[in-house]
Parts: sequence; structure tokens; C-alpha cells
Amino acid sequence: MGNSFGNLFRIHTYGESHGKALGVIIDGCPAGLLIDEAFIQSELDRRKPGQSKITTQRKEADEFEIVSGVFEGKSTGTPISIMIRNQDQKSKDYSHIADKFRPSHADYTFQTKYGIRDYRGGGRSSARETVARVAAGAVAKLFLKHHSISFYAYVSQVGHLKLDKDYTQLDLTKIEDNILRCPDPEMADKMIELIDQTRKNRDTIGGIVTGVIQGVPAGLGEPVFDKLHAEIGKAMLSINAVKGFEYGSGFEGVKLNGSEHNDEFYMDNNLVKTRTNYSGGIQGGISNGQDIYFNVAFKPVATIMTDQESINEAGDRVTVEGKGRHDPCVVSRAVPIVEAMAALVIADYLLISETNRI
Amino acid sequence: MGNSFGNLFRIHTYGESHGKALGVIIDGCPAGLLIDEAFIQSELDRRKPGQSKITTQRKEADEFEIVSGVFEGKSTGTPISIMIRNQDQKSKDYSHIADKFRPSHADYTFQTKYGIRDYRGGGRSSARETVARVAAGAVAKLFLKHHSISFYAYVSQVGHLKLDKDYTQLDLTKIEDNILRCPDPEMADKMIELIDQTRKNRDTIGGIVTGVIQGVPAGLGEPVFDKLHAEIGKAMLSINAVKGFEYGSGFEGVKLNGSEHNDEFYMDNNLVKTRTNYSGGIQGGISNGQDIYFNVAFKPVATIMTDQESINEAGDRVTVEGKGRHDPCVVSRAVPIVEAMAALVIADYLLISETNRI
Amino acid sequence: MGNSFGNLFRIHTYGESHGKALGVIIDGCPAGLLIDEAFIQSELDRRKPGQSKITTQRKEADEFEIVSGVFEGKSTGTPISIMIRNQDQKSKDYSHIADKFRPSHADYTFQTKYGIRDYRGGGRSSARETVARVAAGAVAKLFLKHHSISFYAYVSQVGHLKLDKDYTQLDLTKIEDNILRCPDPEMADKMIELIDQTRKNRDTIGGIVTGVIQGVPAGLGEPVFDKLHAEIGKAMLSINAVKGFEYGSGFEGVKLNGSEHNDEFYMDNNLVKTRTNYSGGIQGGISNGQDIYFNVAFKPVATIMTDQESINEAGDRVTVEGKGRHDPCVVSRAVPIVEAMAALVIADYLLISETNRI
Amino acid sequence: MGNSFGNLFRIHTYGESHGKALGVIIDGCPAGLLIDEAFIQSELDRRKPGQSKITTQRKEADEFEIVSGVFEGKSTGTPISIMIRNQDQKSKDYSHIADKFRPSHADYTFQTKYGIRDYRGGGRSSARETVARVAAGAVAKLFLKHHSISFYAYVSQVGHLKLDKDYTQLDLTKIEDNILRCPDPEMADKMIELIDQTRKNRDTIGGIVTGVIQGVPAGLGEPVFDKLHAEIGKAMLSINAVKGFEYGSGFEGVKLNGSEHNDEFYMDNNLVKTRTNYSGGIQGGISNGQDIYFNVAFKPVATIMTDQESINEAGDRVTVEGKGRHDPCVVSRAVPIVEAMAALVIADYLLISETNRI
Repeated sequence: MGNSFGNLFRIHTYGESHGKALGVIIDGCPAGLLIDEAFIQSELDRRKPGQSKITTQRKEADEFEIVSGVFEGKSTGTPISIMIRNQDQKSKDYSHIADKFRPSHADYTFQTKYGIRDYRGGGRSSARETVARVAAGAVAKLFLKHHSISFYAYVSQVGHLKLDKDYTQLDLTKIEDNILRCPDPEMADKMIELIDQTRKNRDTIGGIVTGVIQGVPAGLGEPVFDKLHAEIGKAMLSINAVKGFEYGSGFEGVKLNGSEHNDEFYMDNNLVKTRTNYSGGIQGGISNGQDIYFNVAFKPVATIMTDQESINEAGDRVTVEGKGRHDPCVVSRAVPIVEAMAALVIADYLLISETNRI
Repeated sequence: MGNSFGNLFRIHTYGESHGKALGVIIDGCPAGLLIDEAFIQSELDRRKPGQSKITTQRKEADEFEIVSGVFEGKSTGTPISIMIRNQDQKSKDYSHIADKFRPSHADYTFQTKYGIRDYRGGGRSSARETVARVAAGAVAKLFLKHHSISFYAYVSQVGHLKLDKDYTQLDLTKIEDNILRCPDPEMADKMIELIDQTRKNRDTIGGIVTGVIQGVPAGLGEPVFDKLHAEIGKAMLSINAVKGFEYGSGFEGVKLNGSEHNDEFYMDNNLVKTRTNYSGGIQGGISNGQDIYFNVAFKPVATIMTDQESINEAGDRVTVEGKGRHDPCVVSRAVPIVEAMAALVIADYLLISETNRI
Repeated sequence: MGNSFGNLFRIHTYGESHGKALGVIIDGCPAGLLIDEAFIQSELDRRKPGQSKITTQRKEADEFEIVSGVFEGKSTGTPISIMIRNQDQKSKDYSHIADKFRPSHADYTFQTKYGIRDYRGGGRSSARETVARVAAGAVAKLFLKHHSISFYAYVSQVGHLKLDKDYTQLDLTKIEDNILRCPDPEMADKMIELIDQTRKNRDTIGGIVTGVIQGVPAGLGEPVFDKLHAEIGKAMLSINAVKGFEYGSGFEGVKLNGSEHNDEFYMDNNLVKTRTNYSGGIQGGISNGQDIYFNVAFKPVATIMTDQESINEAGDRVTVEGKGRHDPCVVSRAVPIVEAMAALVIADYLLISETNRI
Repeated sequence: MGNSFGNLFRIHTYGESHGKALGVIIDGCPAGLLIDEAFIQSELDRRKPGQSKITTQRKEADEFEIVSGVFEGKSTGTPISIMIRNQDQKSKDYSHIADKFRPSHADYTFQTKYGIRDYRGGGRSSARETVARVAAGAVAKLFLKHHSISFYAYVSQVGHLKLDKDYTQLDLTKIEDNILRCPDPEMADKMIELIDQTRKNRDTIGGIVTGVIQGVPAGLGEPVFDKLHAEIGKAMLSINAVKGFEYGSGFEGVKLNGSEHNDEFYMDNNLVKTRTNYSGGIQGGISNGQDIYFNVAFKPVATIMTDQESINEAGDRVTVEGKGRHDPCVVSRAVPIVEAMAALVIADYLLISETNRI
């Protein structure tokens, strides 16, 4: 289990970090959708390694192949299978950790759960798996463009450096203007400098990515267990290295009184709006038509360039050497992944909502 | 959709705040489990309204009836249906808001989604729905006692009052010693005073509940989309009024370097342990045998006792009067709900894990 | 598992033959549907025991209670919970078979699977479970009336007595004109006589129920594994005592050549039709707009009124006495069950089909 | 929807008849299973086209590639992705039917459902899709060999030629001794002659495949909706061209009395057995340890070599020419598909059954 996501707009992924390929089947994409391959590639390029000095130097073109489900440029309603072959496998790099449990990695837990594991680069537990999510998310975005729904994500914190503006005070069209994907140029420079310094220290650091979804109509989301924010939260928490999720007023909101926190409804030329948006665009688990916004916390990458003490499968004390390639901070590459997962949730819930009434 | 939770240990709930009854079907509970009805009632009593001066004064005995699935005191492997009849319906109380959209409630979103809604006390969107979760969670706890897995939740913040100790510095056996369910007596008194003052101000306030799961064996959790913490996160985010979830180092952890954050493995008489637990007992989405701990943020209750401006179904400007009964702060009653949802996730993943290997 | 059916129009059932009650949760019924309680009762009455000399004499009013999901007479989009209390439990009747395995019943398999069983009247394995299906099916029929889709089922064979006319040669409005539910009066009399004679012989006999669905639009059904006829087939095979399912040309069709069996398309005032309908209204697993028809084979009831040799839980040789109440032939009461299951499948697939295209 | 099958041992398939490739993801295969690639290929070879004079002459090597989920020869518990590239696409062959609806094919229903279709060889609706089922079924068989469960299928009827022996009177090890896969040599020759004559008449003919599963332990199957035979039935009905399914006594059984049909239990050196097996190894939807056997009816292939009248997308009268390559009768190639689907069901239910008891 665990390799599928969604209900009606549903994906199934496969592949390991250093296996032959990774891929995704998109099942339930409505028929007749124009599949813009250039857009899919551009999304993959935003996630791919080696794109800047603050990302891992692993080299992957991340070119994809559509194997099924598209005929004469359009979706046919049958499963869209997309595959990305691994090029730079360098399996020998990993022989030195074949039987070692790297601290704060999934080596020990996979070994304990399955009694066997593909140790090469973490195998299935590697964040390389997210390439399949971004490919699927790109298709979801293409579908949602028909509904004028747009997705933005950006870096709002790196280590202790926290952006003091919220998304309404930022120009979201400037996200791609720098390698970090923070729309505030001054803060972006400081954050990039911090990441670069951390890399030189052979260390890593955490950060926060903020997501914004605009244009979602009121009425998306399922009551009780599948509330819209609960599904978005699960989607984000399923991304490698994520430790926390909050939406709307989030953790800070607990300090407020109801009289401050409640969002007053009013009519704005026949449109229902709220004067404030502490609700984050979702009330009772269902979208209310206002912007949806949330924060996703990423821990510092576990792979560091210094030696660490640990144990091996036999339980012997061992040293895990600091070598290989890694991201000093994942947030810049996490931006398209956060957008992709958000798009997958909205696409799914949009389809579900079409069946709400007689 | 949205009224079911879990995969193998699966529940389906139904019922509205002021309907005839609420209930749950538990499908997949292993056969042969002794169903301790007194324990189930004691769990329901921890959640029920009117239990103290800081909770709503609505009167409900919350007595349950087991309708199926139990024979001669034991589970039979067939669906366990549990029903709780509503007593204190007071439907007339709600006529004054029949066509009004209460700020930060689900009135507007339900109306928009379905074109109809049971406006009495919020209908299906009311937190009264959680009574079914607690009943099911009690059965999950009974099952997990066989596996020596225990669940604790407590109030760690109310408004700006934040407990400065983590769970390892607290005596979790003292949680039930006060009406707030905060194991630190001094802080509990301050928090209760703050809630009581807020109630007198006819207002409400938010808070945080911390959850701790002990005794979970290594190997529970499904890679990629159904990571253990992602499912726990979704479970918590699905609880009414929740705005955020974090586990392990959470949002604070983003400030750390990998060299500080990594949890070193070591052997403690043939047991694999980690010297620190920033991972929160979960690595790569799979339990590693250490304690699982997390925080859940609850917004201030939307129902306040002062008048508020809003609109009605026709889009006219209206005043929502501050009347009826409400909780000034939900955290004390949320404690058993948080435990119940955690128990449901662990029970489900424990069953799944039995099928991991040949 | 196994107590839920459907995807978007989804039901969950519970209850045992001699437990407190049986019931169903209908999740996914579109909002705004007028719930006609008299119609639901009339469907339950068609299935209930004691309705004629050829059915079991167990006495049950089978009155239902709608516990949730309906407000001011209409569905709200939240789970519709319907409960039917058992009246005539007569548990003492079953003490004599508490530890015996009745031949061709589910006593041995339930005991082996779960290590425990409610032996009273077969517990969960009793056909009494189908009362919940009929209640849910009635709601599905109400929904499908809005789409002008109608369901008919009738008895087409009892023992060796086989109706030699197909459904196009019969007046389906006459199905309820006799206690057997066979629209051919002469054959009905012969079949009733055969069943009555069988009952007097303290024995039982099998039969076939034919189902017909009219008004299904073209385009319902999911390719590959969830073909429309595969889901209808599973629905029918899940009914107690069913041993076979065929649709369209069925088993007889294997004798034909493709040149005889192919259904030629033609236009009939802008409507696409086929000159023959060996396909049974389904091609490639998707409805083509023609009538859907199928046969369901029911084995002779396992409960007979003569003594039989068997074993008990200890493996000792025992005699199972022929006592208690039973149906000499299930087909007349199976008719509304077959219709109900067909309606549940069509309601589900109709909702799914609303999401096929952009 | 519709491209996934199973619950815990779950598959997802993709691909079109004349697309780049077809494939399957197997999710939930227990870890540590030795993946015998030679066996998988041998199963694909039993299904592949061009293997004898009575099958289509389309040329496909049907060589597979394992893309993920296998490390050092063993399953790792992560998704096993298997891909089969199409070689002999000959798309030009299909231009003549690009806008025509072939009689009794899925052209019209796919077009109506999706508004677009890959018309090349039927696209997703082609039986070529079953290559993915056989690959997955081979993995399921490898898993079930550990549990000593074996699968047999053979041709028991072609047109009016019906084998008069049941499986207990046949030597199932002789199934592969002839190109038809009928273990009775004399009847096999007659059937092959009939198929060959039909082919020369440029026509097609139907047939029946009988399946036998031996070694299934008692206790597999889920009560009510997911009864073991209901799931096997759905699996079989989902295979292209299938019109009917029956198990145990099937349609003939309806003629019997309960006193003849009931299977008496007895002990055979501490093993529970039944003297007859009209139940077909399943009682109350759960396996009882006896042989499971069933029949699957296949209609005559719709593609015939003579011209037929039909309509096109515009609704105009057109002639569908009899050209291209086809199977005069599908049963010989259907044998491995029937076995594969049976193995997938048993593997899934075996895993589910591991969670039945505390």
C-alpha cells in the first residue's frame, strides 16, 4: 500500500532512486484534455537536480515518456502512464552504506518492515520518487487551468531567516526570479547566502514552503474525515522531510479569541466574500471561494558531509562517512512538489464535487 | 464520501448534531476481542458535554448501544455497529439561524455544496460527530492493549499560555487530575482561569493538544503517500477546529542543522534506539520503535456569545445573535478525540503491517 | 472487509440474523433527493418473510427507521443511516446447532475464519442481511427514477420448470400479480405447485431469477476490471445462494458464430440502436443504450426439514435435525434483492460517468 | 477508474493495443519473494499471439521489462512495475475503421463515454490489455506456490462441442499437451478441427474455459459483498468477451433438491472434508478447503473476416470490411488469463485473511 493517491483523479507511482526508472499512472484524468508536453517538462525542470549551486549536483535530465493514455495529443480517459528513466545511477557510490543505517534516514525502518531493502540512494524512500508526483501534478494543473484555478508555492523561511510578509504582500509572479524561489529579492539573497554557507560547512538546514491556491470555487471538500485541508495536509506531510503543516491562521491562531478570529461574510457585487481570511479559504472542510493558503515545514536534510556514528544491520557500532551528493536545503526544489500535490488534491475534489447533487 | 476512515481497521460514521442519533460501523476489527463496554463508556464520558464549568452546558448522557458485531462479549469479525441517541435536541434553539450563515462556521459551505443543509446546531458539521470517533477509538484502544501500545494526549497550550516542558518532563498519569487535562497542575490552573475569564467575556479561545504514542513496534507505516505521520496528520486535521499539525521537531526543527537534528542510532541491550528523537518516532514514514509525539492546533470556537454581522442565504445583511450553548475552548474535550484518532490509525497500520513479508 | 459496496454511491451494512438489528449507511447519495418512505417500505415488504405460503413463516414486520441524512424529507448529501430492528429472534431455536456445522451452510467456514461465530440463524451469513440491501436499493431506485431508469426482475425457472419465453415476450407489469413473481400466469401456477410439493416433502429447490434494466444511457461502465457487467455480476454473486450469473447471450451464446452473434448498429430517428441484442446492452463493459438483461442462478436452500449427517466443532459425527422455519425456494423473495443490487450498481456508475470528460 | 484490481495484493494496468507499451504495477506483493523471470516469460508465452494455427497471426514477442520493485532477484515490498513494449503496431491497418463503429465491439461505447477514442485495434478495449494481467498473475502464482496453491484452467467447450467429463475425470497435467489446452486428446482434436473450419469460413466461434484451484486453505473470502466466488466471478467477467460465470453446481444446480445438493461433512484423518462438492469449495463466500472450480463462457470474437453493415460517428450507414488479423476462437489463449485472474484474487484474499483474528 501507500503508492497511490487520490480518489477519482488518482495516481499510482513506482520506482527507486537508482533503479531503471520512476513513473506514474494517472487514472481518472477526464478525456479530451490537451496534454501540453512542454509544460510537463518545464515542471520537471523546476524540480530536477543540478539546477543551481544550492541543489544537489546529481545529473539527471529528467526527460519523460508518455507510454499510454494520450491519443493525437489529448487524454482519452484511459490511464496516462508517464515514465522517467534514471541516467546517473552511480550504484557503486552506495556500497559503503549497504548494511549501515544512516541516522534519520529510512534505512532502519525499511529493513525492519520488509527484511530487505534497495540501499542504493535510499531506494524507494529517496526524494527522487517525487519526480513522478511533479509529472502527475503537471497534468492536474493542465486540467485545472480549464477551471481558472492557479497554484503558487514559495520559500518563506530558511533556518532562522523568516519572511515577515504574508502572501498578500508579495508579488507571486516573481517566485521564479531567483534560484531559491522566494519572491522577496532581499530576503532571497540572505537565504541563498545562508544555504551556501551551510553547504560549505558540509551541513544542511531546514525551511518552510508556503502554498497558495487561487480560484477554487466554493463547495470543494468532503465533510468529516476527508476535509479539504485534511487531504491537503496529508498530501504535504507525505512529501519527504516534511514535519509540519498548518493552514489559515495555523498555530498562531490558537492565541486569538473567536471574536478576533471569525471571518465576517459580506456581499461584493453578488459575490460572497469574507473581510478577513483566518479560515484559509476552507470552512468545515469545504472551500468557501476565498484563497487557500498553508505552510509546510521541511526538516534539515539527513545526508550531511561529515562522519556520523551509527549501527549496521548486525547491530555493530559503525561510522557513516560524509560523502556523495546532496541538497544542503530542499526548499527550492520542494516548491514545484508542493504545487503538484496541491493540484492533485484539487483536481480530485473537483471531480468528486460534480456528484454532490441530483 | 468523507465519512469513512482507515483501510483494514475501517470505520464509517453517520448522524447529525440534532438528528435522532449518531453512530459508527467498525469494519475489520479482528475477531475474538473482548469488548469492554465500561471502558467504551468511560471514553465517551471524557468527551461528553457538560462535564465541567469550562465546557458547553448542553446535556447529553452519551450512552451507547452495540447493535451488531459482538457475540457473548467478543468481537466476531463482522461489523460492530455502535449507536448513540441524541437526547437534548432543542431544535427550536436554531430557528433564528435557519437561513443565516454564521461566521467561520460551515453553514455557507454546506449550503453551497449541497443546496440544502440541516441547520440545527450545524447538522453534520457539528463537533458532536466526534462522539462516534471516540466510541470507535475505544475499540481500537482495546485491540492495541494486546500489543502494549498506549495513547496519551494533553493540553499544552491555551491562548498565549504555553507549557514550557515537553512530554518527557511531565507525568502523563496526571492528565485526568484536572478538568483541563493538562498534567502540569500550576499551568493547568492558569489555563482554566484564562478559559473561565474568556467565557465570562462571552468569547472563545484556541489551544494546542499534544499527543504521545508509546509502544509502537518498528515497521508500521506505508511508504510514499500513506506515511504513518501523514495519516496521523490527516486524522488530526479532520477533527473540527484543527488548523495545524506537527510531529517530532515540527516547525521549530526547520531552524536546525542536519548535524544537530539527526538522531544517532545505538544499541541498548539488543534494542535499537536513538539518542535523540527529533524524528518523532517515524523515519521515512515508518515507525522506528521510539515514542511518537505530535502537536495539534485548535482555533478558537466560532460560536461566540456576542452579536456578529453576516449575510443570509438571500445575500442580505443580517445580525447573528450570540445565544445558545458553547465551549469557550475545545481543548479539554478534544483530548480523548485526539487519542481516539491516533488509536484508529495505529490499529489500521498494525493490521496492514502483518502482510508486509512472505 | 466485505461489508461495503459501491464507489461513489456507496453502502455499508451491518447486523446479524438474530442480533438486535440490521442496517445500512448510504454514503454518496446526491443531495436534494425526495426520500419516499412509503416506497422504501413497499420494497421491504416484497422481500419480507411470511408473505405467502411459499416463503418462510418467520414473522418480521421489517419496519425501518431513518436515523440520519434526511432533513425535511430530502437527502442532505450526508450519510443516510437506515435501521431495521429484529423482532422475532427466537434464539433458543438455535441452541441445538450451537456447535454443529450444518451441511452447505457457512457455519464451518465462519468458525474456521474467525474462531468464533454467532450461530443463531447463521448470524451474519444469514440471508436476513439482504434486508439492508433492499432498503438501500430502494433509495437508489428513487434516485434513478430522475433518470428514467427502471428495474425489473422475475422468476424464470424453478427446478426443471423453465420459462421458454424471454423478457421481450413477457408483460413485465404482471410480475407482482402472483406470489412467485413470474409474469407468465400458467407457468407461475406450475412453479408454485412444484415449490409447494417440495415444501411438503420437507425439501427445498433451486431456481433462476432474470433481471432487466431499461433506460440506461450509453456510456455507463468502467473499462478493464470494473466493466459494468462485471460489477453487476459481482453484485448478484454476492447474494446468498447464488451460483451463477450470465448476461446477454450468456452460456448459450458460446455455441454461436460471430456472424450470428454480432449486433448490427443502425439509426432509428437519430437514436443509435442494434438490430439484435446478444450483447445484453453492454459492449466493452460500457452500456450502449439497449436493454440490459441477465440471469441469476440460485441453489436449493441448504436448510431442509429432514435429518442430515455432519460433524461438530470437535470433529465428532453428529446429526443435524430438520427443524426451524425456512424458504422451500428463495426465488420469489430474491426478486426485489436482485433489483436492489442492480439499482445500486447503476446509481454508482451513473455518478462515476459524470466525471468522464473535461 | 476501472484499471485497478485487488485490495492488498493490488494491480494497476495501462496501455493500448497499438500504443507504445502495456504494463502493470503490482502494489502489495509481500517482500522477500524470489521473482522467477523465466516463469513470468513462460506464462506470457502461453498467452501471446501467433503461437498456433488457431490463434491470431499478429506477431508479438511479448518480452517484459521489470522496471522497479525487485532488488537482487527478490521483491522489496515496493511497487513492482512490469512493462511490455508493443512491436507490431501496424497502425495503418486501422485507418479504414477510424470513424466506424464495429458491430459488438467497444468503438461506439468508448466514443459515447469519452468523446474520443484510440481506434487502433480497439485501443484500451483490446484483449491485448490482458498481457498485463498475465504478467501480474505470474507473480501472484509465485507467491502462492509458497502456500502450495495451484491453478489449472482448460478448454471444456467450443461451439456445440462440450466435454462430458468433469475436472475430476481428467488429467490436468495434460492441458499443455495440445494447442487448444483441452486435457482430453480426442475431444481436443475435434474442437481444433471445428475452430480451423470456422477460421476457413472467415468466421469465429465461442467456447467455455473451466478453472480449478487446488490447495486453498479454509477461511479465505469476505462475507456479504466480497464473497470469494463473487470476486472470482467479477475477475472472470472482466476478461474480454466473457458473458457468464458459474461455480460449483452452477446453473445446473438449480434443478436439484437441497437433500441432493447439500455437501455432507466428514472427518478424514483429522481433515474436514465434504463427500460431495456442489458448493465448489466455497460456503457463505468463504473457502472450505475443498477444490474450487468454475466455468467461464466466452462469446464468439466480434472481429470476423466478412463485411458487415454498421454506422459511423456521423450516423451514416457504412460497411465494415472483414480484414486484419484475429483469433477465430479465444479460449486457448484465455486459459492463462483465467488462471492469472484466479491467482490475483487468491493472493489478495490470502493477505486479507492474515488480519482476521487478534
